[in-house]
Amino acid sequence: MRAATIRDGEVVIEEHPDPTPGAGEVLVRVRAAGLNGADMMQRRGLYPAPPGSPADIPGLELAGEVAALGPGAERFAAGERVMAIVGGGGQAELAVVHERQLMPVPATLDWAAAGGLAEVFTTAHDALFAQAGLRPGERLLVHGGAGGVGVAAIQLARAAGAHVTATVRREELRKPVSELGADAIPPEDFAARGPFDVILELVGAPNMPENLLALATGGRIVVIGVSAGAKTELNMLALMGHRARIHGSTLRARPLEEKALTARRLEREVLPLFDTHATGAAAGTGNEAGALRVPIAATFPLDDVAAAYERFAAGGKLGKIVLTLE
Amino acid sequence: MRAATIRDGEVVIEEHPDPTPGAGEVLVRVRAAGLNGADMMQRRGLYPAPPGSPADIPGLELAGEVAALGPGAERFAAGERVMAIVGGGGQAELAVVHERQLMPVPATLDWAAAGGLAEVFTTAHDALFAQAGLRPGERLLVHGGAGGVGVAAIQLARAAGAHVTATVRREELRKPVSELGADAIPPEDFAARGPFDVILELVGAPNMPENLLALATGGRIVVIGVSAGAKTELNMLALMGHRARIHGSTLRARPLEEKALTARRLEREVLPLFDTHATGAAAGTGNEAGALRVPIAATFPLDDVAAAYERFAAGGKLGKIVLTLE
Repeated sequence: MRAATIRDGEVVIEEHPDPTPGAGEVLVRVRAAGLNGADMMQRRGLYPAPPGSPADIPGLELAGEVAALGPGAERFAAGERVMAIVGGGGQAELAVVHERQLMPVPATLDWAAAGGLAEVFTTAHDALFAQAGLRPGERLLVHGGAGGVGVAAIQLARAAGAHVTATVRREELRKPVSELGADAIPPEDFAARGPFDVILELVGAPNMPENLLALATGGRIVVIGVSAGAKTELNMLALMGHRARIHGSTLRARPLEEKALTARRLEREVLPLFDTHATGAAAGTGNEAGALRVPIAATFPLDDVAAAYERFAAGGKLGKIVLTLE
Repeated sequence: MRAATIRDGEVVIEEHPDPTPGAGEVLVRVRAAGLNGADMMQRRGLYPAPPGSPADIPGLELAGEVAALGPGAERFAAGERVMAIVGGGGQAELAVVHERQLMPVPATLDWAAAGGLAEVFTTAHDALFAQAGLRPGERLLVHGGAGGVGVAAIQLARAAGAHVTATVRREELRKPVSELGADAIPPEDFAARGPFDVILELVGAPNMPENLLALATGGRIVVIGVSAGAKTELNMLALMGHRARIHGSTLRARPLEEKALTARRLEREVLPLFDTHATGAAAGTGNEAGALRVPIAATFPLDDVAAAYERFAAGGKLGKIVLTLE
């Protein structure tokens, strides 16, 4: 099979042996695979794949058709449309995924949307609900509202009855973010818009001192992105005074059983929200939008993977960059 | 009534009007009132009492007899032995406490133990279980194991089936701390003793960078004391990599309904553990020790409040400093 491959800080296409599904595993013919910030870090050699994932094939999420079943795999049949987060190896023609990590693709979603859904919606859902315990009526601030996780978090929080404010650096992206249901503001304005019950930090250290001050009593900060810097000063007296919590999280390093649990939660609590009929929304084009959408900034064929990475690294997009395969 | 009173950074005894119990409140004739770190801060003008508490009478906990009932108060009868955490005003001959904050004093406890129980056991129980979610079999590190909250936390964690390590600065206090059920170690050794599932930080900022590195995956740090400093550097990438949480907490500023909830939890989950008969332990002297004990470092009559504060501020004690009243 052909796969995106990391070679000396570059991403190229190389030939690899076809993977074979083991017990409980499924061989997926990949039709779409989203790019994520972790791919950029892995390309620079900063974020090695966890044990059990291909070391040199990037890609944390994929969607495709079931091509073959390993011994004992029974949740899906050949040809079914499936999607998943994976520890790595998603950006390839074929990928092996444990069946407990796979989710069915909602009928309303095309391949690009399905290939860009799993990582960001799982990350956002886990951060907002499993970790921060976001409740209806609470006030959420999303730092980095135009990125993949930000776009997912805004929609999930709105669907759960929370009030959402999102910082968006590029002025031209504020309108599309506000159309997702957030009050889209310049980053420098956020401290005055508080207090917030939950802050989702997708940017990094520079926001943290003011985050703490903008928090309501009992507030929670969840840190899942630090592209703008990882080290900050923590005032523990302010943390105590706000009776606040700071969570750090990554999905990638979790064991199979935890990833499987997040997949079951997504099937139950999130995927039905993509169903047009469930919400009465008119079917659109592209993503066939229901209540939730997977905004796609651009798609690239697998052969253009280098250009896709450059587009991702350039920033300033709304939504996902997704590789597509015939 | 006579009461400890803060005047220009000193604690003196002054005459105050007797307080009157309002609706749902109880007038308590105080027989013992413990000292806490917050009293030291309040004496220095750094930690003002919350609204509704006497501004100039310190004291966050008390034990005594019910002297009179306000309108509608019905949980206790005149003469009953009660104890409570209060927002302030505990170090006085009389104090008014809402009946939902009061707890009955276990029969095994003398006045000094009862007067030094509420603040530290409530603080430790809330931090370990309500916040950190400590589970049987987990590994707990207590920074500052010889202090009031540390002594309570060690005993509560042991009773819940956790493994406990405690840092104790003074060499001569390590043996008594180890007799409470902890592995008592010098502070400089803790990083090598990890990983820990939960770290209770009672000392402050200097420990924090190494705390984060000594944490197990999914670990929690609860910060409730910062006497050694409040500001530290936080490495958010390490927080993410450990999928860790940092909680800050204080009890004092919480509203009545939350304090009442913590009192009900203590009645249900902690006070039975002071009952000698419940554990088969031999009755001792002083605290009449059951499974749990309230170690008392020293008692002082109310008139000697200035000496009591000096003793507390000097440190190097195991257990509580408690004021006693006839």
